[in-house]
Amino acid sequence: MSEIEKIFVTYNDVHKLCQESAQQILDNFKPHLIVAIGGGGYVPARILRSFLKQPGSPNIPIQAIGLSLYETLPETEGGNATPGVPEIPGTKVTRTQWLDLSALGEMENLVGKRVLIVDEVDDTRTTLEYAVKELEKDVEAARKRLNTDKATEFSIFVLHNKDKQKKGTLPSEMTSAGRYLAARTVGDAWINYPWEAVDIDEHDRQAAAAVARGGN
Amino acid sequence: MSEIEKIFVTYNDVHKLCQESAQQILDNFKPHLIVAIGGGGYVPARILRSFLKQPGSPNIPIQAIGLSLYETLPETEGGNATPGVPEIPGTKVTRTQWLDLSALGEMENLVGKRVLIVDEVDDTRTTLEYAVKELEKDVEAARKRLNTDKATEFSIFVLHNKDKQKKGTLPSEMTSAGRYLAARTVGDAWINYPWEAVDIDEHDRQAAAAVARGGN
Repeated sequence: MSEIEKIFVTYNDVHKLCQESAQQILDNFKPHLIVAIGGGGYVPARILRSFLKQPGSPNIPIQAIGLSLYETLPETEGGNATPGVPEIPGTKVTRTQWLDLSALGEMENLVGKRVLIVDEVDDTRTTLEYAVKELEKDVEAARKRLNTDKATEFSIFVLHNKDKQKKGTLPSEMTSAGRYLAARTVGDAWINYPWEAVDIDEHDRQAAAAVARGGN
Repeated sequence: MSEIEKIFVTYNDVHKLCQESAQQILDNFKPHLIVAIGGGGYVPARILRSFLKQPGSPNIPIQAIGLSLYETLPETEGGNATPGVPEIPGTKVTRTQWLDLSALGEMENLVGKRVLIVDEVDDTRTTLEYAVKELEKDVEAARKRLNTDKATEFSIFVLHNKDKQKKGTLPSEMTSAGRYLAARTVGDAWINYPWEAVDIDEHDRQAAAAVARGGN
């Protein structure tokens, strides 16, 4: 088995990936709402909001949803359960938080709108499939209640897409219509995000070393 | 009028402030739940979660709430409405997202628990007062429904507290019991957080220059 490539992503990398993608998101998606998938989507969603803000317009609202796919297995005590060490990927998605319909003014307000779903990584695609399907289901029910044919468009932004066999699928019209944007496409690498780093200076050194080697 | 001091906070500063505060939070608060006040609380909450994770235990769940205090005034078109330029502080708090009670298993599950509220800055204290009061109100109602005397403890973590006249107040027992933690206390400065930087490299240079001058 060949060694898995490790990618070290600095905070400033994350910032710049959001910045360079923002114009494309404004050109193609013009979202009314950002849905941040927590915890990994929190940081890119907050950064994106700065760059998506238009002069004279209010901030694009962010709603956080919590979807948990990676879970620590009971037998990994002291092993995977430390910062900086990725957890074992699970197979089922657990909802820990969903849209706040009271603040959104009920799901009806999303009908006919453009919604940008943000996460840090598209790995197996399981979480993204879940998010898109469940959001579409809720909005479709609201659309029927309103008896309208106004479509809601969902789009996706991730920092990294791993080019690998996916377990989850996304609607084909989403990718064909350019409503799927990954700032970077990488191999089936082990991506170290900065918010998981135990030693952020060492993390940055690893990232700089990879750049010096022509990687990352 | 004297010039307002500008503080430039880098992402790695934020990371390290969370890291150094995590042990104190584990010693004093041991939270069951993190409530991130969006959007400024998203980044510190996500970083804190890494450092609060205990071997063999699952991640501490994060619920995001959305409270909006700073609003762009209509007449500031093109002025304050650009990334990197702070907006005009508003005076009222708008709720854009609240706890998801369905995922939390109803508010009853918070009764007798320890809840850590996370935001980036304690400026006028208006937002924090709102968050604590409203969360306490919801939990108190749930406590009465359960007919128990189990108390729920709320604590606060912010990256920066501005040492200034506050508009909002926090319960006195919160501060006296050490359940209020600010990683840094600063003057009434203008704090530039990295997720609002238009040019993150220039932002970092400003931060480094301030350190060289013995500031920040």
